[in-house]
Amino acid sequence: MGRLSDLFAPETVAVVGATDREGAVGRAILENLRDGFAGEVVPINPNRDEVLGLECYRDVQAAPPIDLAVVVVPPTIVIDAIEDVAEAGIDDVVVITAGFAETGGEGAKRERQLRELAAEYDLNVVGPNSLGVMSTPNGMNATFGPENALEGSISFMSQSGAFITAVLDWANEQGIGFQDVVSLGNKTVLDETDFVREWGEDADTDVIIGYLEDIDDGQAFLRTAREVTDDTPIVLVKSGRTDAGAQAASSHTGAIAGSERAYEAGLEQAGVIRATSVQELFDYARALSGLPQPDGDGVAVVTNAGGPGVLTTDAVGDSSLRMADFTDETIDALAEAMPDEANVYNPIDAIGDADVERFREALDTALDDPNVGSAVVVSAPTAVLEYDKLAEVVIEKREEHDKPVVTCLMGGERARAAEEVLREFGIPNYFDPSRAVAGLDALARYCDVSERTIGEPTTFDVDRERAREILERAHDREDNRLGVESMALLDAYGIPTPDGEIVDDPDRARDVAESIEGDVVMKIVSPDISHKSDIGGVKIGVADDDVYDAYEDLVARARNYQPDATVLGVQVQEQLDLESATETIVGMNRDPQFGPLLLFGLGGIFVEILEDTAVRVAPIGEDEAREMVDEIQAAPLLRGARGREPADVDGVVETIQRLSQLVSDFPSILELDVNPLVAGPDGVQAIDLRLTVDTDEL
Amino acid sequence: MGRLSDLFAPETVAVVGATDREGAVGRAILENLRDGFAGEVVPINPNRDEVLGLECYRDVQAAPPIDLAVVVVPPTIVIDAIEDVAEAGIDDVVVITAGFAETGGEGAKRERQLRELAAEYDLNVVGPNSLGVMSTPNGMNATFGPENALEGSISFMSQSGAFITAVLDWANEQGIGFQDVVSLGNKTVLDETDFVREWGEDADTDVIIGYLEDIDDGQAFLRTAREVTDDTPIVLVKSGRTDAGAQAASSHTGAIAGSERAYEAGLEQAGVIRATSVQELFDYARALSGLPQPDGDGVAVVTNAGGPGVLTTDAVGDSSLRMADFTDETIDALAEAMPDEANVYNPIDAIGDADVERFREALDTALDDPNVGSAVVVSAPTAVLEYDKLAEVVIEKREEHDKPVVTCLMGGERARAAEEVLREFGIPNYFDPSRAVAGLDALARYCDVSERTIGEPTTFDVDRERAREILERAHDREDNRLGVESMALLDAYGIPTPDGEIVDDPDRARDVAESIEGDVVMKIVSPDISHKSDIGGVKIGVADDDVYDAYEDLVARARNYQPDATVLGVQVQEQLDLESATETIVGMNRDPQFGPLLLFGLGGIFVEILEDTAVRVAPIGEDEAREMVDEIQAAPLLRGARGREPADVDGVVETIQRLSQLVSDFPSILELDVNPLVAGPDGVQAIDLRLTVDTDEL
Repeated sequence: MGRLSDLFAPETVAVVGATDREGAVGRAILENLRDGFAGEVVPINPNRDEVLGLECYRDVQAAPPIDLAVVVVPPTIVIDAIEDVAEAGIDDVVVITAGFAETGGEGAKRERQLRELAAEYDLNVVGPNSLGVMSTPNGMNATFGPENALEGSISFMSQSGAFITAVLDWANEQGIGFQDVVSLGNKTVLDETDFVREWGEDADTDVIIGYLEDIDDGQAFLRTAREVTDDTPIVLVKSGRTDAGAQAASSHTGAIAGSERAYEAGLEQAGVIRATSVQELFDYARALSGLPQPDGDGVAVVTNAGGPGVLTTDAVGDSSLRMADFTDETIDALAEAMPDEANVYNPIDAIGDADVERFREALDTALDDPNVGSAVVVSAPTAVLEYDKLAEVVIEKREEHDKPVVTCLMGGERARAAEEVLREFGIPNYFDPSRAVAGLDALARYCDVSERTIGEPTTFDVDRERAREILERAHDREDNRLGVESMALLDAYGIPTPDGEIVDDPDRARDVAESIEGDVVMKIVSPDISHKSDIGGVKIGVADDDVYDAYEDLVARARNYQPDATVLGVQVQEQLDLESATETIVGMNRDPQFGPLLLFGLGGIFVEILEDTAVRVAPIGEDEAREMVDEIQAAPLLRGARGREPADVDGVVETIQRLSQLVSDFPSILELDVNPLVAGPDGVQAIDLRLTVDTDEL
Repeated sequence: MGRLSDLFAPETVAVVGATDREGAVGRAILENLRDGFAGEVVPINPNRDEVLGLECYRDVQAAPPIDLAVVVVPPTIVIDAIEDVAEAGIDDVVVITAGFAETGGEGAKRERQLRELAAEYDLNVVGPNSLGVMSTPNGMNATFGPENALEGSISFMSQSGAFITAVLDWANEQGIGFQDVVSLGNKTVLDETDFVREWGEDADTDVIIGYLEDIDDGQAFLRTAREVTDDTPIVLVKSGRTDAGAQAASSHTGAIAGSERAYEAGLEQAGVIRATSVQELFDYARALSGLPQPDGDGVAVVTNAGGPGVLTTDAVGDSSLRMADFTDETIDALAEAMPDEANVYNPIDAIGDADVERFREALDTALDDPNVGSAVVVSAPTAVLEYDKLAEVVIEKREEHDKPVVTCLMGGERARAAEEVLREFGIPNYFDPSRAVAGLDALARYCDVSERTIGEPTTFDVDRERAREILERAHDREDNRLGVESMALLDAYGIPTPDGEIVDDPDRARDVAESIEGDVVMKIVSPDISHKSDIGGVKIGVADDDVYDAYEDLVARARNYQPDATVLGVQVQEQLDLESATETIVGMNRDPQFGPLLLFGLGGIFVEILEDTAVRVAPIGEDEAREMVDEIQAAPLLRGARGREPADVDGVVETIQRLSQLVSDFPSILELDVNPLVAGPDGVQAIDLRLTVDTDEL
């Protein structure tokens, strides 16, 4: 346990605002604590000497030493009550009271006060507006919910108290147990990152699950969760995935919705397994909490029913797993053991008259196969198959081979007893073959997460000072939109740009052109003219002799188009051979939760119409940059599809990393687009740049 | 009821092969029939006078008049037994006996005999290798399964008997009832199309559901299902979706797997709603069997719990539905009725202390809104909310407003009684908000199906005779691969092709070139050279004066490349302005189940790398052809994205239809590719053609 040990394993809990008034929250909490907590419960109420048979104190100062204070007083006096708690030297506080930021006005002020108080006294505060916390090892139910949790190895956080009450009822019926449960409330002080860190250090927590509507600090969460998921799986329902859902979440908790794309990327980078429903959340958690990691991605399916066997196979095909190819030995052994009509290839169909012994033989043989990493047992009820005995066989073989096995014993009530026995041994039984495979798939995906190595971002040797100067110039100009005139920024970060210069007289233009081999490209440079081509502001293939006139013409066109436009000059640039090159885009915008979000895609229609892009939260290292390039659908075009020469993918990967470093170094860069970044067989070149900077801070 | 009325509503059922031997299938069926069937049960067994207390006859001739014979005799005598049944004038037979095509050898022969016998006597045969049939109105359970079905309005067919036993057990527990149930077995005579037709005519069947591993005759199924789905929803699990699944299905039932793409297109065109799991199948069926059709796609969500409300909103965002925009009147009325902390926008959060009256108010107001077509009630358990009373309110308001309402009353056991009451009134309660919305979504999708009008395929005025002659020439040449030399085929079907001709001497080449305005394109024409460009077999922009030499050069190159290649000549073709045009592809291949499968996409990388294509089973009319063009991701490129001039989409749509007519007229065309079909602003032109024909049949 980490620094929050007093929150979940206190010896003494005070209920500040305890009462025996029927229907009061302060009574419900006291009752829940009294009914199971192994430690001492101390009611605090200045108007009572005793509450529900427990000695009551007028304030925390007067009470015996307290580890955890649960505060349920009315909103108008809640800040004073918490201050009393802090003054009494109590560091851990659960604030049940509502009426904070979620109500605006006075509430928002109260929330600020609470934050300040917590900072001043270094308090661990859960809530406010929380259902409370539970910890099953010591029987502590410091919530006002109607249900207590069973003991288990899942720790559960939720940004919705109702979600907890809705789930517990059902989980109890299913025999699903928890270690700690916390209702996060407004997350004024402690948030998801704190609990992920805490439970990551808790040896008794096998799986962390949560329902979240937002993540306060995406970067902190990403760093922490990435470490925690090395050892402990995290499964989250992050709601507000859709536009409508995000709007609803925002009106529910006042959360500012970051983009779903950022959450998707950030949670994936953090190693979090995402669920989209309550059912998925627990289907995954059940597999992750009791089974060993699979030994490879090959799945064996053992069944007595052809149809369900085919459905299971389809589900495997839909997952990250694959049907195991049995070795010849396995097939021979199965053929020996099974009747002629059985199918000894995967899925093994032991056919309708299979009894428990035939299942034992099939499962044992399959799990013995080195190509089998895990197994699913799927059965239809028959007169000759006893489910209780089948459960015993599954438990025995799972342990003997130390490979994960999940079951789908079909047929309602008939399977209930067997399901309970299986559960005791950590084997989840699922209603449906597709859910069984999804459970196994979560386990396999977590196995990948726990085994992955994510290289640290490379720190390239860049000219940070020069970049700072360029950005400062924009700051001085009070212009927040920068364009091609700031290409030196890329140069400072070691990103190749075509030879050339921005000049402000025609003679200089000719000099520059003459210093460049071959014809040049000339472009008007003006922050006020964004679509240069449309006004004839770009000239291609200009010979040295024509450069002077071309300069005059470009400036005239710009003036003609918009007399008051700021013209910074004309860019004279090396003309690249684009014939064998591919246009790509690397962009960045800042997400309110996750910060810099990098985007990669091929140019033009690929980004604009097909939306074929990859995103990652920066900073990223080489592996992640390469993943970005590989995961777009059009990736084969870069790798030399259809007879093209392969582009310099390594150059693209490096450029993405250098831009990751740039946007991480300068938070004042709000948006950035290198478009196009041309990738040819011999290298990459950034042709154009647009960025938006925050001129207030640099 | 249709022609299969004796199958489901017989007055007398014979069990041929009835026995009282413990564990025998012939006993299990007799017991199941005896225990509930409203009609008469007649055991047939030459060695018994009485079986299980019922008078037994030596053969069907000796028995009283029989409507339906269930045959369970051993495989070696099954054909004789069925012949006896047919001779006795019984038209309806269920063959339980296994050991037919699924075992190969003798079994395959037996299956042929059964098919012939059925044709000779015009028998309706279910099976062989079937679990049997059930029909609840008359209590008939003519299966050997352990469970009987409850009465209801869902009719259910399954290609897997185990699937039926696995499902019934659970369905009984859930109170889900059925009208008819049939285990299709080997489908030697009656198949899915027959039952879809039968149940489509059955007033007591509200929903048809099924588990299928293949569809015997895709075209027949499509036509029948399309009619039936006007009035009766069909929900199917078609397994073998994935490659691994298809392989497993094939080894299970011996079904030849057609392509998943064909099933996907064919089932969609048929109006079938597809489920991928047992759970989805029943989640959809429950919504479709008891609720009215929604009045528009706006959904209202009413809840007492913010978190689950957001999850529900996400689920709506994922579906074909959308969150309803409430009218000002609705919002005012809700604001009046709800406490200040409630959210009166959609999702309506009546907050944690909402009692049944507040739910009543909220649901009533929401359903009254003209923008609300349906509603989801989502609740977390609280001390103040009585689920039984909530169920009554939901039932009352659903009926009062005649709009569909589904519920998600969270919290296991606590919701059970309310769930049962809701079910009685046709309102499905779901475990999870996402499943509740998926149920409502199935209802909405079916509403679209039932309201759609699919135009008959247009019959264009084409020169079918000329097309036949061209195909016959290929037949005479015994060459099954046709190329550009058969472009006249397209011409015969009114598809524009560039001016030009295939010539076999250089003088004629020049004459043709001179008759065409501007430069020409010249291509070598040889069935043996498929990648013409690679060997320099294509010349672009050839001026009239150069045509003679170009001809000689092309032929020399072809000879040089492959001395024994058949050279049919050189194509001299008008050179099109491709600058402003878009290359598209229209293709066709024949699926073993569904027949001609049309494909449309943009050329090159769009088809080959991005796999951005649309497919339909031919024949199709204008609406479906237009859908094909619209549904590809790159469709905006045709419609004039990024400053391009819009292409002649109507021309593309017409070409697809004309090709649909061509491939429907000539089953000997096995594969066809018009690639490219160039679509410019002023029209379309088919530039190249490849087809494979069956030279054995024309």
